Amino acid sequence: VLPKEYSDLFIKNFSFWEHLSHDEKTLLVENAKNVRFQKGAGVHNENNDCSGILLVKSGQLRTYMLSDDGRDITLYRMFSGDVCIMSAACVLEEVTFDVFIDAVEDTELLIIATAAFNRLAENNIYVKCFAYEQATARFSDVMWAMQQILFMSVDQRLAIFLIDEFSKEKSDKLRITHEQIARYMGSAREVVSRMLKYFEQDGIVRLSRGGVEVTDKEKLRKLAGMV
Amino acid sequence: VLPKEYSDLFIKNFSFWEHLSHDEKTLLVENAKNVRFQKGAGVHNENNDCSGILLVKSGQLRTYMLSDDGRDITLYRMFSGDVCIMSAACVLEEVTFDVFIDAVEDTELLIIATAAFNRLAENNIYVKCFAYEQATARFSDVMWAMQQILFMSVDQRLAIFLIDEFSKEKSDKLRITHEQIARYMGSAREVVSRMLKYFEQDGIVRLSRGGVEVTDKEKLRKLAGMV
Repeated sequence: VLPKEYSDLFIKNFSFWEHLSHDEKTLLVENAKNVRFQKGAGVHNENNDCSGILLVKSGQLRTYMLSDDGRDITLYRMFSGDVCIMSAACVLEEVTFDVFIDAVEDTELLIIATAAFNRLAENNIYVKCFAYEQATARFSDVMWAMQQILFMSVDQRLAIFLIDEFSKEKSDKLRITHEQIARYMGSAREVVSRMLKYFEQDGIVRLSRGGVEVTDKEKLRKLAGMV
Repeated sequence: VLPKEYSDLFIKNFSFWEHLSHDEKTLLVENAKNVRFQKGAGVHNENNDCSGILLVKSGQLRTYMLSDDGRDITLYRMFSGDVCIMSAACVLEEVTFDVFIDAVEDTELLIIATAAFNRLAENNIYVKCFAYEQATARFSDVMWAMQQILFMSVDQRLAIFLIDEFSKEKSDKLRITHEQIARYMGSAREVVSRMLKYFEQDGIVRLSRGGVEVTDKEKLRKLAGMV
């Protein structure tokens, strides 16, 4: 009999669970462990292309790509309940690139060891299919990011970013630096600072040391193209 | 008994073939048809998000994204033997974006009707898994394109593009306009023209009306970062 805490988590987040034999379920559970990462910690990088399959229990992860000269582009973020397969790229033959993953907040993960997951995926088509479905979902995220970065003006992207953050934090005030905003948006700090200043002059936000407060939501939503 | 021409094609390009029942094979074959597209023709656009699954028999397809103001970014190209699932995005729940596909050359496709493929994918996990695997392979292509566009200098990207084209055409001369090069690279014509001129001054290529000829391969490879 499996510990109930685990089986609940697996049933909810791994759609292949019902297609596993008892032995396969045991293998999965025995190779899963809870790991905590502190805010800012690196969870995965291109040098360990098989950190394992990650299930976010709480907190937030950011997946990004990095250029040779250190420029960094956010691809997508993951929240509670999200499963990350890109940290186990070696399991998927069709994945030929690597990404970096950091913890944006204190984050609790369930990590499934790559070797065990690989064994399941090789022998059970439902597990393999699940892995490729997850990868495809991330593909959609990346296409969205790409459209933003390549096609949208910086003011629109900044407006969308701020609205997302205010709504995630359920607050009108954000504790965030211009540097961090730039990194999330895949932009430069100077560009973000200039644009924020312009937003402030327009009465849309109020800037403080290490923070941004929204003062005209309607105008911000208009800039974001939402109204 | 199925026509041999079809079954050969399916066995070779659709890894799920051996997992189909006789009825499923028949359904697939009966819903496949050969279609020819002339060079430059639109094969798929975001308004018909379910043109069907495409198998390239000969020729070349280009998949791209388009901004509201008409800017166009090449995501990847497909050649003989490649299977395109993104033209049937409606089959895959996890795909939430649309792309455009054009024929770059006269192209012959085998098109599988979406409804039939969808029925197979719903009832046969191997078909579903194949579709997600194909999508993930395209994800890798897009990540490569994104790294190029976002991280590489234009001269390096142009050099890589030219080397690719010379090797595909098995020739030192290309019949291609600056406009076409710019479109493939997701860049602007002016930028490409300026860079080609600079390459010419450097003795790397010779430009003619509607064509580019390589004159110093070693230098071009160096620019591409290949030596």
